[in-house]
Amino acid sequence: MTEQILTEPVTPAAIAGRSEQVAPLLRRHLPITPFLRFEAFSEELGAEVLVKCEHLQRTGSFKARGSMAKILTLSDQQRERGVVTASTGNHGLGVGNALAALGGRGIVYLPENASASKVAALRRLGLEIRAEGTDSGVLEPKARAYAAEHGLVYVPPYNDPEIIAGQGTVGVEILEQLAGGRLDAVVVAVGGGGLVSGVASVLKRHCPDLRVYGASPVRDSAMASSVEAGEIVQVDARATLSDGTAGSVEPGSITFELCRELVDDWILVGEDAISAALRMVIDTEHQLIEGSAAMAFAAARARRTELEGQRVAIVSCGGNISASTLVAALA
Amino acid sequence: MTEQILTEPVTPAAIAGRSEQVAPLLRRHLPITPFLRFEAFSEELGAEVLVKCEHLQRTGSFKARGSMAKILTLSDQQRERGVVTASTGNHGLGVGNALAALGGRGIVYLPENASASKVAALRRLGLEIRAEGTDSGVLEPKARAYAAEHGLVYVPPYNDPEIIAGQGTVGVEILEQLAGGRLDAVVVAVGGGGLVSGVASVLKRHCPDLRVYGASPVRDSAMASSVEAGEIVQVDARATLSDGTAGSVEPGSITFELCRELVDDWILVGEDAISAALRMVIDTEHQLIEGSAAMAFAAARARRTELEGQRVAIVSCGGNISASTLVAALA
Repeated sequence: MTEQILTEPVTPAAIAGRSEQVAPLLRRHLPITPFLRFEAFSEELGAEVLVKCEHLQRTGSFKARGSMAKILTLSDQQRERGVVTASTGNHGLGVGNALAALGGRGIVYLPENASASKVAALRRLGLEIRAEGTDSGVLEPKARAYAAEHGLVYVPPYNDPEIIAGQGTVGVEILEQLAGGRLDAVVVAVGGGGLVSGVASVLKRHCPDLRVYGASPVRDSAMASSVEAGEIVQVDARATLSDGTAGSVEPGSITFELCRELVDDWILVGEDAISAALRMVIDTEHQLIEGSAAMAFAAARARRTELEGQRVAIVSCGGNISASTLVAALA
Repeated sequence: MTEQILTEPVTPAAIAGRSEQVAPLLRRHLPITPFLRFEAFSEELGAEVLVKCEHLQRTGSFKARGSMAKILTLSDQQRERGVVTASTGNHGLGVGNALAALGGRGIVYLPENASASKVAALRRLGLEIRAEGTDSGVLEPKARAYAAEHGLVYVPPYNDPEIIAGQGTVGVEILEQLAGGRLDAVVVAVGGGGLVSGVASVLKRHCPDLRVYGASPVRDSAMASSVEAGEIVQVDARATLSDGTAGSVEPGSITFELCRELVDDWILVGEDAISAALRMVIDTEHQLIEGSAAMAFAAARARRTELEGQRVAIVSCGGNISASTLVAALA
């Protein structure tokens, strides 16, 4: 069950190679998500828009890939003793799903004000819940400390080469689904940068002229600001509909150098544009996506002129949105 | 390309046989939809709830099946000359999708106040649009008259054995996906009765003890009222969130006798219960379903006591809902 672990240095080439190795292993446990042409949005942009539907991934987001890839590197004993993570959402579901599939125990640190439906979903996957305070910033140190103290493995949300390579399998599938066809650009939502680092590492190896757009909310753009500053900086984050990308970038995160090298252009998206994109996807495709995915569609809209006539992939990274958030966004 | 057409009499056995014949033909053009255990709703009901996800069917509803089955029985010449239909929604998309896949022309009669996004979707499938008045009741006679006058084939929404057999392929797939497992009950939304007639014909042939629940909105329950009256009656229909099941039952419809024989119990659902079920599916599964599908979930909730401990299939018949309808339902 234990898999060869990625060794230093963490270059895009190393990530891409590892993504290609791990993709067939993930396929035993996770579905291949559809890569669909969105007709109405293609018409609107005057481009061919192909959407990688990670909102239809198991657990409702791409995070299931990275967690599965990481937990596949653990020994049976490590999984049986238990892994620890901190999450307010998709990453916790990914860890729970991987443990349910592969066997093993898991503990997830959550804020005390996490929604009941989220807690119930994590519990259904068999995770033990530790509710601690209401500040999500303290959860990760607490989880790390607990893991270190008890000799358990901590599973980080993005700052880990195996996690990044797992997210990179989104790119491996896109290449297969393109079946040799060209791709001019890809638009990816960026929070900690795990998804874009993985996807861009894989895609740029095969399509060197591909343009990679990183999308972040105006209200919470830690990675874009860090790349602009030339070092990881803390930003004053405000609440955003794109809650899936929220949070600061961990000091020393390996995703910083990867994003600096791989992301060709950054698009900062306002809240109204995110809501409008969410409405568009519901009205034209009748699919439910979360705010972070809607943000990627909004980012593509913002670059309509330069994308015209191109073949553009949008990674629709997740679909986990509550009815009340949906109503607030669309009302 | 022409297929053997179902001959009289239209018994459940004849429908079931035809559904089994047509299922492999449809599979060349339509995906097999998932049949998923909804964990949170299973917990809520104390039952095992398996959901047939027709909201993930091509065109966003099961209607793609019946139209495809019907249009498969036409000759190349008939398809090239053109078919005519009347629809304000899912049936038109089904006809358009079948013609796009099989080749052929189509004309769809729509009310003048149909939404722009619906018209655009039908046009993208290559249909010619005829907007006529604002009363959907006059569309079907107009479409029939035009077809008769020009020697074209009219494709009805439910009152046709081939259409019913096409919808019955939902049942064929459920049996395959059960893989020999038992099924105690199925809950199906009923408008004209095409879906429930097809699904129940197939399932009851293999599971004779299966209980079939027909669900309709309190505000628009033409078939339930007709079965209760012992003849097809016109009811005073009011607007409902379950717009996919709206409309009267055509005089002489073959679905009347089929429903009378096959539906064991009727459940009438209020608007608040439909909205609450829609919210539940979004919050627990993050999937977008339309009002008629939410109605089937609400109907199962209303029979919680008798379904306890059972293995219940719910046909989630479609996912075509607009952002504005969604907000109105959830707000």
